[in-house]
Amino acid sequence: MRILFVGDVMGEPGQEMLEQYLPLVKHKYRPQVTIVNGENATHGRGINERVYKKILKSGADIITMGNHTWDNREIHDFIDDAKKLIRPANFSAHKVPGKGYAIININQIKLAVLNLQGRVFMNPSDDPFAVAEKIITELQEKTDVIFVDFHAETTSEKEAFAWYFAGKVSAVLGTHTHVQTNDARILPGGTAFLSDVGFTGPYNGILGMKRENVIERFLNQMPTRFEVDETGPQTFSACLVDVNDSNGQAKRIETLQINPDHPWMD
Amino acid sequence: MRILFVGDVMGEPGQEMLEQYLPLVKHKYRPQVTIVNGENATHGRGINERVYKKILKSGADIITMGNHTWDNREIHDFIDDAKKLIRPANFSAHKVPGKGYAIININQIKLAVLNLQGRVFMNPSDDPFAVAEKIITELQEKTDVIFVDFHAETTSEKEAFAWYFAGKVSAVLGTHTHVQTNDARILPGGTAFLSDVGFTGPYNGILGMKRENVIERFLNQMPTRFEVDETGPQTFSACLVDVNDSNGQAKRIETLQINPDHPWMD
Amino acid sequence: MRILFVGDVMGEPGQEMLEQYLPLVKHKYRPQVTIVNGENATHGRGINERVYKKILKSGADIITMGNHTWDNREIHDFIDDAKKLIRPANFSAHKVPGKGYAIININQIKLAVLNLQGRVFMNPSDDPFAVAEKIITELQEKTDVIFVDFHAETTSEKEAFAWYFAGKVSAVLGTHTHVQTNDARILPGGTAFLSDVGFTGPYNGILGMKRENVIERFLNQMPTRFEVDETGPQTFSACLVDVNDSNGQAKRIETLQINPDHPWMD
Amino acid sequence: MRILFVGDVMGEPGQEMLEQYLPLVKHKYRPQVTIVNGENATHGRGINERVYKKILKSGADIITMGNHTWDNREIHDFIDDAKKLIRPANFSAHKVPGKGYAIININQIKLAVLNLQGRVFMNPSDDPFAVAEKIITELQEKTDVIFVDFHAETTSEKEAFAWYFAGKVSAVLGTHTHVQTNDARILPGGTAFLSDVGFTGPYNGILGMKRENVIERFLNQMPTRFEVDETGPQTFSACLVDVNDSNGQAKRIETLQINPDHPWMD
Ligand SMILES: [Fe+2]
Ligand SMILES: [Fe+2]
Ligand SMILES: [Fe+2]
Ligand SMILES: [Fe+2]
Ligand SMILES: [Fe+2]
Ligand SMILES: [Fe+2]
Ligand SMILES: [Fe+2]
Ligand SMILES: [Fe+2]
Repeated sequence: MRILFVGDVMGEPGQEMLEQYLPLVKHKYRPQVTIVNGENATHGRGINERVYKKILKSGADIITMGNHTWDNREIHDFIDDAKKLIRPANFSAHKVPGKGYAIININQIKLAVLNLQGRVFMNPSDDPFAVAEKIITELQEKTDVIFVDFHAETTSEKEAFAWYFAGKVSAVLGTHTHVQTNDARILPGGTAFLSDVGFTGPYNGILGMKRENVIERFLNQMPTRFEVDETGPQTFSACLVDVNDSNGQAKRIETLQINPDHPWMD
Repeated sequence: MRILFVGDVMGEPGQEMLEQYLPLVKHKYRPQVTIVNGENATHGRGINERVYKKILKSGADIITMGNHTWDNREIHDFIDDAKKLIRPANFSAHKVPGKGYAIININQIKLAVLNLQGRVFMNPSDDPFAVAEKIITELQEKTDVIFVDFHAETTSEKEAFAWYFAGKVSAVLGTHTHVQTNDARILPGGTAFLSDVGFTGPYNGILGMKRENVIERFLNQMPTRFEVDETGPQTFSACLVDVNDSNGQAKRIETLQINPDHPWMD
Repeated sequence: MRILFVGDVMGEPGQEMLEQYLPLVKHKYRPQVTIVNGENATHGRGINERVYKKILKSGADIITMGNHTWDNREIHDFIDDAKKLIRPANFSAHKVPGKGYAIININQIKLAVLNLQGRVFMNPSDDPFAVAEKIITELQEKTDVIFVDFHAETTSEKEAFAWYFAGKVSAVLGTHTHVQTNDARILPGGTAFLSDVGFTGPYNGILGMKRENVIERFLNQMPTRFEVDETGPQTFSACLVDVNDSNGQAKRIETLQINPDHPWMD
Repeated sequence: MRILFVGDVMGEPGQEMLEQYLPLVKHKYRPQVTIVNGENATHGRGINERVYKKILKSGADIITMGNHTWDNREIHDFIDDAKKLIRPANFSAHKVPGKGYAIININQIKLAVLNLQGRVFMNPSDDPFAVAEKIITELQEKTDVIFVDFHAETTSEKEAFAWYFAGKVSAVLGTHTHVQTNDARILPGGTAFLSDVGFTGPYNGILGMKRENVIERFLNQMPTRFEVDETGPQTFSACLVDVNDSNGQAKRIETLQINPDHPWMD
């Protein structure tokens, strides 16, 4: 099967990019399933039910999250019933709502999607290696096709994670830095890897936030309210992975960007 | 002029990649000047005089550094006389050897190369924005062509830095994460930008270090000695920037990788 | 002269402790000057003009700040005119309002009060050692009595700072951890030192915040709004330093606490 | 029973202080059991078998550790057989040697000693709250007297931990900062608490390390080798806790220091 993964959708601009380009990208590349990271979907911080439904309507099958999972309090209103939303599986086990993985059927094939968060330079969480090992072992009894969104800051943790699970999962695609990396490859054993898919939203902001605010904070270290940059051009960052359904091994990985420097071509 | 910038050269494998490919790359792309980040050149940690000279001999004109500058103590033996070596300019002013920028003449044109280090998730240093502003203002009286190696961890600090100095320097190219990003672009005012150039060294290690050691530390959080992975294939990561000599504005930026997934083609 | 220094005043409960006990403490110990850290004075985050004036009325001569300086936006309304308020002197020089030190006259003797912030495990700031060295050198031309509130997280940075400036200033008293340390001493050269003075506010909260909220965040790592604990008993944390006016050397340092475990005795 | 807890013993000077004062302290205060944190006992970094035995011979019954547990590689030679050594229980479960708690008999009463490490501003580890909850629940079936050495950096994590387990354990005493705090108290339910016991070793170093080296690093941010300060006076930092054997509730907590500012008095 072909999996399309879209990186962190950022606010209204990101939602609009999804609405506009997801149909075109699907029409051109024909993925069987579309996964979207939605941790920044509502005003750049978390996600509420309206936007959750909007992204599904735009064509997502599963929405993954990250360190911004709880930023929008409205998530508590719907996360228990949101079958298509997963958040990092290694969040604390102490009464934390939501779930860390989902299994969906794609033409008789089961696809497991697992979301995890790194620990280096991030808030404390349970050990992503240990938690993943446990869940992946369980999932392997149900399917060979396992897709991981590893939401992490450093390249070292992302590479270590991918190499450790190489041959055990179909893909480890990173998110969180909002910048697409140029290291897409198939690791031994058939695991597609990309350090970071990049994000989907304002192209001339800083990680999607208004430049002035972010720069001002770097200059004077005083608090400024970061807001999604609602003006200017947008970017769409994604990755396509082709998986051999019979054994779960990835055969091909390709990155995708749509923005003024990478204009869309049908 | 055309500038070639090669990302963090890692140990013997990285030195060998330079030796082998720098001549070929130069022959094919014809850069007028070659800048190499050498912070990991000697056994992955710092640089000594032998390797400094070897990299120059391989074809580098200027060597930049980063957070690993002082890791190899032999640097103190030659840094004061090393005209072609610069280290982050925003290191403390307190009796720190070395210099943060260099000016070289390329066919009658002065090229200033400036090295800086970020502060987010890195050891404390002087403010890179303030230090850069001061130095760039001085350099602008001497030349329009200013190249910056901004050695930093986070994409936010790199983007903020680049946008803040957009139109004031010819290029802001990032280093440190050892993973090439896919965001090369020309910012308004003619500033070439790339979050990270990537590194040059072992392709199947983790950031160039032996996988087993790094993975082990992630699994059990116990200290392991990281060593450069001396086996297996290598990668060469670089970036080419074309600058308009008359005004210092970048016209073109292109990334380059040589490794099993991106084989060299003459 | 005798200097009384009161640690981080926390919200309404802290203000009330000041109002109630500052007169009693002054009456008993007869300090010539009272310095109060007010970075948490308004609802635990920053300070506004009303509370600034209230603390002065309660008996403070100078108010120092820390990493929470800008948390309450109302500070911008009065900081430019607030002669008795100082904030860390090593905040960025880039258009940051306020000042980092103040000089006041105490019975014909000039007392300089300097506020600085550490860098380890704190937001980036200018180098506190370099900034302090510059300012202290200037201040020494005006007075021998220099008092430093060094607002920092780690004991190592606090001790290093104090030992480096030992013999150059009358006192280095730490703040920020909200827990009084038991290491008050006079360093060689006559510099009084205490890693942390502790805080003034709710005694049964966590650093003065409601326990339930803070514990909940440690248990599940989910965001909770921290609020000043407005119930239960209070604590008053302070330090007294006796300085020889003729040479600025500290002769004596003593900590002070008032709370259910250290009841006030006249 | 009366428990004596001695904070981080630092190198030769720390060992000597133990040898000299432990007998005197025991003679004066008559504790039934002595617990010593030994994470810095061998040259400031970890512990080897010779020093382990020496500290036991000086009078320790149990030795606890912290983030420096693995610094001295010789620990691997004896940790599996070291019945009186425990290391933080929340270290990764992945093939990590050693154990996190021990139970000893003191005059027919079982005393459980548990070692844990914090996560804020420290290397990643398993959740100390969750791990402690599980172990303490198990231990409570065997004894009411549970002593915890919580090795952590921040006062917030220490206070949150102590309040969360208040009434469930006899004592939560902190270590790691090497500076004794002045907040000893009995929390509701009979849990003795002290944020940090302080350390045992060189009194005029910085956290026990030679001042020059540590200060130099703060001044220029360049690597220096930290070494235990072997000259000058020493300090001995400890805490005494009286526990009601019948219900495990602490009745009294008192700190102890021996150094030039707190001379020993028989
Ligand atoms: Fe994101
Ligand atoms: Fe994120
Ligand atoms: Fe590097
Ligand atoms: Fe680096
Ligand atoms: Fe505070
Ligand atoms: Fe603070
Ligand atoms: Fe220690
Ligand atoms: Fe420690």
